[in-house]
Amino acid sequence: MHHHMVWSQKEWLGLLYLCSFLVGLNETMCVFFLSSMFPNVIPDCDPTISPRLYHTCMAPISVSTCIATPGPANFLEEEGNRGLVAAVFGILFSSLCVLVLDSDPLPLISDSSQHNRGKEYWKILALLYYPAFYYPLVACATVRHRASYLVGCLLSWCHCVVHIWQKVDCPQSPKIYRYYSVLSYVPIILCLVVLSLWYPALLIRSFTGQEDSPALPCPLPAGWRMESVPSPCEWAGPFLEYHSLGHPLQVALLLLVAVVPTIQIVRVEMTKDVVVLLVQFGLVPSENPSGVPGNMEMELSTVKYYLWSLEGGWLSWVQLASGLPPRRNNLKALYQGAVLDVFYKAHILRPSRQAVVCWMSFAGFQTAFVCLGLLIQQVIFFICSVAFTFLFVIPLQSGTNTYFFKILQNMWPFWLTLVVTVIVQNLAAHYQFLEQHPLWKELTNRRALYIVSYLFFPINILVGVLAGLWRMVISALYNAIHFCRLDISLLNRSVETFDPGYHAYCHYLKIEVSQSHPVMKAFCLLLLQLSRPEGQPGLRPSNVEEGIQLMQTKKVPSSRAKFRQSRARWWLAYTLLNNPSLIACRKTALSDPTANGTRLSPPKP
Amino acid sequence: MHHHMVWSQKEWLGLLYLCSFLVGLNETMCVFFLSSMFPNVIPDCDPTISPRLYHTCMAPISVSTCIATPGPANFLEEEGNRGLVAAVFGILFSSLCVLVLDSDPLPLISDSSQHNRGKEYWKILALLYYPAFYYPLVACATVRHRASYLVGCLLSWCHCVVHIWQKVDCPQSPKIYRYYSVLSYVPIILCLVVLSLWYPALLIRSFTGQEDSPALPCPLPAGWRMESVPSPCEWAGPFLEYHSLGHPLQVALLLLVAVVPTIQIVRVEMTKDVVVLLVQFGLVPSENPSGVPGNMEMELSTVKYYLWSLEGGWLSWVQLASGLPPRRNNLKALYQGAVLDVFYKAHILRPSRQAVVCWMSFAGFQTAFVCLGLLIQQVIFFICSVAFTFLFVIPLQSGTNTYFFKILQNMWPFWLTLVVTVIVQNLAAHYQFLEQHPLWKELTNRRALYIVSYLFFPINILVGVLAGLWRMVISALYNAIHFCRLDISLLNRSVETFDPGYHAYCHYLKIEVSQSHPVMKAFCLLLLQLSRPEGQPGLRPSNVEEGIQLMQTKKVPSSRAKFRQSRARWWLAYTLLNNPSLIACRKTALSDPTANGTRLSPPKP
Repeated sequence: MHHHMVWSQKEWLGLLYLCSFLVGLNETMCVFFLSSMFPNVIPDCDPTISPRLYHTCMAPISVSTCIATPGPANFLEEEGNRGLVAAVFGILFSSLCVLVLDSDPLPLISDSSQHNRGKEYWKILALLYYPAFYYPLVACATVRHRASYLVGCLLSWCHCVVHIWQKVDCPQSPKIYRYYSVLSYVPIILCLVVLSLWYPALLIRSFTGQEDSPALPCPLPAGWRMESVPSPCEWAGPFLEYHSLGHPLQVALLLLVAVVPTIQIVRVEMTKDVVVLLVQFGLVPSENPSGVPGNMEMELSTVKYYLWSLEGGWLSWVQLASGLPPRRNNLKALYQGAVLDVFYKAHILRPSRQAVVCWMSFAGFQTAFVCLGLLIQQVIFFICSVAFTFLFVIPLQSGTNTYFFKILQNMWPFWLTLVVTVIVQNLAAHYQFLEQHPLWKELTNRRALYIVSYLFFPINILVGVLAGLWRMVISALYNAIHFCRLDISLLNRSVETFDPGYHAYCHYLKIEVSQSHPVMKAFCLLLLQLSRPEGQPGLRPSNVEEGIQLMQTKKVPSSRAKFRQSRARWWLAYTLLNNPSLIACRKTALSDPTANGTRLSPPKP
Repeated sequence: MHHHMVWSQKEWLGLLYLCSFLVGLNETMCVFFLSSMFPNVIPDCDPTISPRLYHTCMAPISVSTCIATPGPANFLEEEGNRGLVAAVFGILFSSLCVLVLDSDPLPLISDSSQHNRGKEYWKILALLYYPAFYYPLVACATVRHRASYLVGCLLSWCHCVVHIWQKVDCPQSPKIYRYYSVLSYVPIILCLVVLSLWYPALLIRSFTGQEDSPALPCPLPAGWRMESVPSPCEWAGPFLEYHSLGHPLQVALLLLVAVVPTIQIVRVEMTKDVVVLLVQFGLVPSENPSGVPGNMEMELSTVKYYLWSLEGGWLSWVQLASGLPPRRNNLKALYQGAVLDVFYKAHILRPSRQAVVCWMSFAGFQTAFVCLGLLIQQVIFFICSVAFTFLFVIPLQSGTNTYFFKILQNMWPFWLTLVVTVIVQNLAAHYQFLEQHPLWKELTNRRALYIVSYLFFPINILVGVLAGLWRMVISALYNAIHFCRLDISLLNRSVETFDPGYHAYCHYLKIEVSQSHPVMKAFCLLLLQLSRPEGQPGLRPSNVEEGIQLMQTKKVPSSRAKFRQSRARWWLAYTLLNNPSLIACRKTALSDPTANGTRLSPPKP
């Protein structure tokens, strides 16, 4: 019996640490691993308002509010309340994140029935329950009535107070990490705070008679908002705004919750046995290379020092990754009919089944891609940080373990050869193989060119190997950095639609362009203004300001219908010339005058 | 003192095995590792003709042949001898591969002086020595003289016989792997065999008076050659032919040499200790999960069975990866002036310093990229094969270790939910949200559309996570498969020139198009034919058949210079209309009639 084959638990622990260090995905593994290895001594805590009581009370209220608001629920077209819609989507996303790791997914149901085998069924049900649960928060804003604003006000306050109360009551929980529960609810509470400030503002404005105006309190700094979302775009607005600021921050917070405490725990719990293992693997410099555990204080401090630097680097990365401004250039180009600037081939900008499905799932896709992209970036950042620390920082700090520097030192004739070859080829090309005329350049000395090409063939292969490695690195980095961007295909242009993200984005654009062209909306506004008696206040032009900008129009004069008609005709011709993508819509409206009332139809000439 | 901390050598061996299994890069590591762990018992063998004697005799002969051939060395433009040039490039590449692992890089120098510290300097010198050493083999074919053919004949026979003799003398060597030395020289010997058949054929044809004809024995099957290289392209020819068949096979052979013997060695040397380790890691199913080494015959046979399947899979992959046909579409499009079909932005197709340097290093880059690409593909293939074996084959075969199937089984409600959601969204989009007219489709039921989008938001995030994983996998696979292809940029079209491979390819194309337009060459031929007295045999049209095809011309009639001139003018106009990229060249030639004699200039109208 080889007794050294049966590994002790400590050795397993050390190996797991090592693997997670090298692979870079240690955070999630360690979090679970440590929670089982070092159980927290925090007792269970029951908040005054239990989640079950909260959901049992609020769910019927939500359902009754849903039934009581029969008005239009076109909240995705709500201009002034985009921040409100974004906050609700943020709540949904944060609820999903909490749900994934939660032990009782549906607080409405008693714990005993959930702890049976059917837990995953409750999780699936919860995926539909939470959107319905928070639906009144968004529906109340679309009815445009004082009573609904009041209901929204009360509901958001209620949600907000209950959540804060629960977390103040029980700040620590035995789940995963001491403060995990509090930190995971921070995004939800922040979104609820936004809502509970927004609804009172809406209510106050409804009393001061400005309910039609979209000039509502905006939670974003004005300059930033004008820069990234220069003018209101009704459908894309909530999504873009939400994605640009809302959830990258939430994802970053979530990652912060997962990573930084883990690193802290690893640093605190780092024992000598693990250090001995790292020394044995040659990863940590030591004067005691056999790895016999003895005086390892110095090595222990080195490892802790490294973990400190990692923690700092991670925090700075979170700061950097938070800014992902969305792009509206493609939408603008399509409004002007420049299909080939956006797509590689010509597309018909019409709704289709696939386009509608992609439009419906676009927000979810965007969210998921941002999450995955941040995760990938974080893994790459982690690997690079580990490599940098072990190859540069620790060798330079301690003066040992300088394998990498030694390799570089031994290979310098090789690097020098490559550099000299490239320089010689450039000089020869410039002075020997190119005949320089004032206006053009021409090849010359062909025989020498062939011979030099032949002689440098083996060295050029080695240069090519370096270029190939660079190609690998740069394409991987490019794809990782642009993973969040749905408007960029990660595949070559000939097969770009095989990229599922880009595919969804293209179809999303089709619906956006065909349904919300600003010029079309500007026409509708003008038509409504013309058919209205003089003096009565119509819709504010701020609603359609983008379309009016595109038309470069002045205020419509209030005299002579004949003149107005001829002017409208001229405008139509001019606009169709500048916005060819509208022609399709126009013919549609002409051949079917009994179209759906909700559809925006252009005026007949 | 924790005695279980000091790992035994066997445990280290097992861990190294495991790492190499999981990472997929085991081959190269294992080859070195095993060569040090299991030293071969083959004694040193001195061939009758030692490498040193061979190089000492042949190097002066090569140098004297170089000096004795003052003729044009434009071997890269040699049409009929492209196979010959490709064979010499193949020899160079194989020599480089042998050189990398060789202990005495420069056989010309005595071993004692090489075994000093300056070994790497000799390797660098050898990078330039080998091209010069084999230069006469390619130069002799370009002089177009019987004596040079004879010299080439003798030289190639001499090289070939010496190499075969050396390997027959000493088939086994103590270096790395028993037959490594023989297998690594197989590509060189094959190329030398081609050369020693080609030169006699050239010599015989020079006696039968057909030396100008390019109809030389072609080592490729005619059908294949016509398909991938439909018509001769002078400069690109040798490279393309060489890359398409020559070196992918050589690289595959080299990888075969590195991988298959390793797997065989691993299979033979697989001991019970390693199996115990694999069982402990849960990778191999066992009825004895504690991993105490006892009756492990069954597990040992499982591991060997797995290694058998791996070996078979690897061999079949080599078969698949050998075919990488090159593309000439881009070159043809540029000949016809369709710059924007090839490049994203307009380019000026003129030689420049950068273009000349890229042209010179293109062959080396292409070779290096093919090698790296095959390596990457092999690593991916290895990882997929390991995953497939451990997740599907072994569980299905032994009925144990079915974690993966259990996970799939436990998650089926989750998968079902996602599938049902996608189907429901598609059905709703088709029947509810789209108003179907015979000619067009229009959005309808907007309110329901918004509510459904909102309710499905969390589930769509989960669908988006799967789509994101697919995006990751497909972009990585696409980049890995197309890594060898220099004509495809791995980056997005807006930044595609940051890809070093594609950058080199674009500049290479510039030189090719500006210097070897087939129509330009056809004009030159016609001009030479016109200025020659009647009846004398001129250059064969096969030399320029591509240009004549482009012009769709008939045989030139031999009467009336006036008629010929007017016809030539009409042709010129017609051709310039169809090949706008030629116009630049024409102006150049017009404004500088005293151009370099070797340059191909179009005729003046």
